[in-house]
Amino acid sequence: VALIHYPVLSKNGEVIASAVTNLDLHDIARTARTYGVKGFFVVTPLADQQILAGRILAHWTAGEGARYNPKRGEALALIDIQANFSDVCRAIEDREACRPQVVATSARIAAGTVSYPRLRDMVARGDPYVLAFGTAWGLAEDFIEAADHVLDPIGGQRDYNHLAVRSAAAIVLDRLVGNQNRLSFESGT
Amino acid sequence: VALIHYPVLSKNGEVIASAVTNLDLHDIARTARTYGVKGFFVVTPLADQQILAGRILAHWTAGEGARYNPKRGEALALIDIQANFSDVCRAIEDREACRPQVVATSARIAAGTVSYPRLRDMVARGDPYVLAFGTAWGLAEDFIEAADHVLDPIGGQRDYNHLAVRSAAAIVLDRLVGNQNRLSFESGT
Repeated sequence: VALIHYPVLSKNGEVIASAVTNLDLHDIARTARTYGVKGFFVVTPLADQQILAGRILAHWTAGEGARYNPKRGEALALIDIQANFSDVCRAIEDREACRPQVVATSARIAAGTVSYPRLRDMVARGDPYVLAFGTAWGLAEDFIEAADHVLDPIGGQRDYNHLAVRSAAAIVLDRLVGNQNRLSFESGT
Repeated sequence: VALIHYPVLSKNGEVIASAVTNLDLHDIARTARTYGVKGFFVVTPLADQQILAGRILAHWTAGEGARYNPKRGEALALIDIQANFSDVCRAIEDREACRPQVVATSARIAAGTVSYPRLRDMVARGDPYVLAFGTAWGLAEDFIEAADHVLDPIGGQRDYNHLAVRSAAAIVLDRLVGNQNRLSFESGT
């Protein structure tokens, strides 16, 4: 999983670098750990934001927080702070000996998006995938166009589709790599 | 949906009243609005916490926030602050002319819990249900025992099951009232 702070859209549709949000790191790390995700990349080109993310990480994995709540540190230990998305792909390639396929997520309805069952089957084959989530008002169009796949929006045709990125990441991971409860759910029994 | 701040468990297993977290209100309201939930009850017996929740609500539904981001106000307008859970059930009964069935959520594995497909079928019949989520370390045992149903834990038998309540609410609503994407997912096509 990669949480992208650049290039993302502002409320007015401009491409910006967004600020790191403490609870994005906590919530998505806990979800990633629960669903067996191998790494959680926090991507920001801004040096001060890298330092902020690094401090949060150190507090919970080595500092006071690690003693107070070791389960939290176990989740946050999945975090890897990177300056840009190419470095994320390179880090995964180093680890997996294979370039990951990039899956962009978006709340917008578009042609050619991949469905959840299809991507679930693809992911189950074991090749590395990186799921990219945009902060602020979502991933920039150039990022989405460069991805290998774009996932169907969560809300489909719903009239309101403004989930927090923390909630979106939880729902997407549950749909793609959900557990036994889900499997019994899928078969409709 | 009801977000319970009392009675919930502390880290050490004591029954406490927890503090209201700003992002719980935002994230769960946005998820509730996305999934067509009729009301989001924030339950706290503490007067100062009721005032805090009321201020957040007013900012986004009537104040500066409503002008800055009307979509956020549309979600937060679902919030109804209540001092205790009996008042939540009474408010739903007044609205629906029928007492709601109470569904408690828990991360603990227990006997007699209801599965997601079963509860999904029950909810689809149209009778009122209230889904209760615990803050802090989860709902107190007495609350769970008094509920009509207890939902299966999200993580099943996983070795790590420490989701944020914001993430848990998103996953549970997606499993229970998820959309077309989910329906095609369920049938495995």
